[in-house]
Amino acid sequence: MKKEFNPTARFLMGPGPSDVNPRVLQALASPMIGHLDPQFIQIMDEVMEMTREVFQTTNQVTSVISATGSAGMETCFVNLLEQGDTALVCVKGVFGNRMCDIVERCGANLVRIDAPWGKPIDPSQVKDALGKCSPKLVAIVHAETSTGVLQPLEEISKIVHEAGALFIVDAVTSLCGTQVKVDEWNIDAIYSGTQKCISAPPGLSPVSFSPQSIKVMDSRKTKVQSWYLDLSMIRNYWAGAKRAYHHTGPISMVYSIHEALRIVLEEGLEARFARHKQNHIKLRDGLEAMGFEFLVAPEYRLPMLNAVKIPVGFDDAIIRSRLLNEYNIEIGAGLGEFAGKVWRIGLMGESCTLNHINMLLAALKQIMV
Amino acid sequence: MKKEFNPTARFLMGPGPSDVNPRVLQALASPMIGHLDPQFIQIMDEVMEMTREVFQTTNQVTSVISATGSAGMETCFVNLLEQGDTALVCVKGVFGNRMCDIVERCGANLVRIDAPWGKPIDPSQVKDALGKCSPKLVAIVHAETSTGVLQPLEEISKIVHEAGALFIVDAVTSLCGTQVKVDEWNIDAIYSGTQKCISAPPGLSPVSFSPQSIKVMDSRKTKVQSWYLDLSMIRNYWAGAKRAYHHTGPISMVYSIHEALRIVLEEGLEARFARHKQNHIKLRDGLEAMGFEFLVAPEYRLPMLNAVKIPVGFDDAIIRSRLLNEYNIEIGAGLGEFAGKVWRIGLMGESCTLNHINMLLAALKQIMV
Repeated sequence: MKKEFNPTARFLMGPGPSDVNPRVLQALASPMIGHLDPQFIQIMDEVMEMTREVFQTTNQVTSVISATGSAGMETCFVNLLEQGDTALVCVKGVFGNRMCDIVERCGANLVRIDAPWGKPIDPSQVKDALGKCSPKLVAIVHAETSTGVLQPLEEISKIVHEAGALFIVDAVTSLCGTQVKVDEWNIDAIYSGTQKCISAPPGLSPVSFSPQSIKVMDSRKTKVQSWYLDLSMIRNYWAGAKRAYHHTGPISMVYSIHEALRIVLEEGLEARFARHKQNHIKLRDGLEAMGFEFLVAPEYRLPMLNAVKIPVGFDDAIIRSRLLNEYNIEIGAGLGEFAGKVWRIGLMGESCTLNHINMLLAALKQIMV
Repeated sequence: MKKEFNPTARFLMGPGPSDVNPRVLQALASPMIGHLDPQFIQIMDEVMEMTREVFQTTNQVTSVISATGSAGMETCFVNLLEQGDTALVCVKGVFGNRMCDIVERCGANLVRIDAPWGKPIDPSQVKDALGKCSPKLVAIVHAETSTGVLQPLEEISKIVHEAGALFIVDAVTSLCGTQVKVDEWNIDAIYSGTQKCISAPPGLSPVSFSPQSIKVMDSRKTKVQSWYLDLSMIRNYWAGAKRAYHHTGPISMVYSIHEALRIVLEEGLEARFARHKQNHIKLRDGLEAMGFEFLVAPEYRLPMLNAVKIPVGFDDAIIRSRLLNEYNIEIGAGLGEFAGKVWRIGLMGESCTLNHINMLLAALKQIMV
């Protein structure tokens, strides 16, 4: 017989999940109700409203996919692409690569442009690529969690729309930690995750779609290849007049995002962004004082995900495991070409406090003597 | 600003979700840890072991998909089918129809056989169909939640394997409520849900795959069309030597299934099946004494999902809504051709008690005077 599982409380300062507010944990444990209960319909409505607010959008089709952020990514591509369509993907880390993989699985033609890992895509690269192909959509990651790069979006969005394409954005790590202006930036499809700056448990993906992208979906010639992620049915369940049963909504997870979004909006988006920025500066100052170098140039650094080079002579795995085992602090390893060379230190949502920074800096000083 | 959400406690006697044990709700609220934390690796291992136990299998590839039961269904088909393959689907309700939909989205050739809703598929139908086509797989629903039919599987499994096909089973509603013998019945791919007789919140799908079905996946010529549900990567995350990052595991949901499976195994599978059977008989006796008629013949009735005809002269929606609003009891409406004509009364997991039955029968007597 397995024993009861009692996880050690951690301080989560990696690339997500981040710490979860006790109010959110308590919401998770609320009594179960049915997925067609009028009370559940009400909480779905409220989650949609608050999701619109944090995406800064009036998009009617704004809801939550019943799976993690990567399923949100897949939702955008499988609903917008049909076999033979062309997609232009901007790659500068792991998650741009994942987009390429999904585009190919859709049977679409993939055109990709790359920036070196740790740097953003330059708008001129997008312009050049659009001179050579006419894609149905252009996709880019806003906050590359694998490198810590914040990708400016406004200029690229203009270029994309001038070329008549849809603009798809990954906001998994950025949403609720820095500006994500869906309407002002003219984003046609966007997805996020719950376990980063929203500070809810992982397992849901907030998404939003512009009227233009809905028009494209409504004029598809073929069915969406995924039944589970087919928005034409998900829309009916979340927001249709009849609330038609599609799948069984993940009730407890919806409770958790409801409470987490309430906390976000109580703080206010602008205050929350400022907090992430200020704490990023404090962490940066502390790390630089210890001799750490950042991977990313100052103007493109993510506030909530700080990628720093591991100083020569220090062992990646040993230090991370001492942080975890002796201090209960989790930081993130490098991914892909940065494995063993870079740490990714998260300051996301509930984990973005001066106490977290102080604890981590002190622990690092004690370990790296 | 939205208010805190405080759902009314319900007695869940519909087609799922079922009532959740307080221990499971408490597990949900355990502290968040990272999805690559050694402690999370440990709980994943334990969940895999317990999932094998309830599926009565030694299949190495037995784990949990990070989405609801319908995503488990899709996982089976997208991993086993490639474009141009043929699939034979047995349809006798909503969930067989859903299988057909998914098969077509895979670009496979669909052959379907139908039984009238409320009746099982006859093995001779499968045999006849297999005389006319050579499918890669045959799929069938074990417990049709839309009709209350328990489908015998052993004879059909033999026929399917004699024809050299793989045998795919939907055990969403049956698992942990009645016998599901994956190895003894020679099932090649099976999926379930958490919110039925396991009595965990909805949001995960336990799955298991035979060595033969893994061989078929390993010799695919094309990539699985879904990135999120691609088992070659999910296997590496759940059970690979390196536990390679795929998506971010839904931590809190994994806590919940861990505790729910512990409760299932504490009771013991045989005792649990006997409890479902005994309570089904008590409910049946009570309903029949009130004049209700069952939809399904006695030998094919599901213990955990009782489909009864709504007596002439009584209004479906009014009675269900009085049950919900005055008694906090949820029962299920009819689906598809049974809408307005049938109720589906669940006795699943934690909702399968004599108290639930007594409450429901008393409430129905008070309402249907």
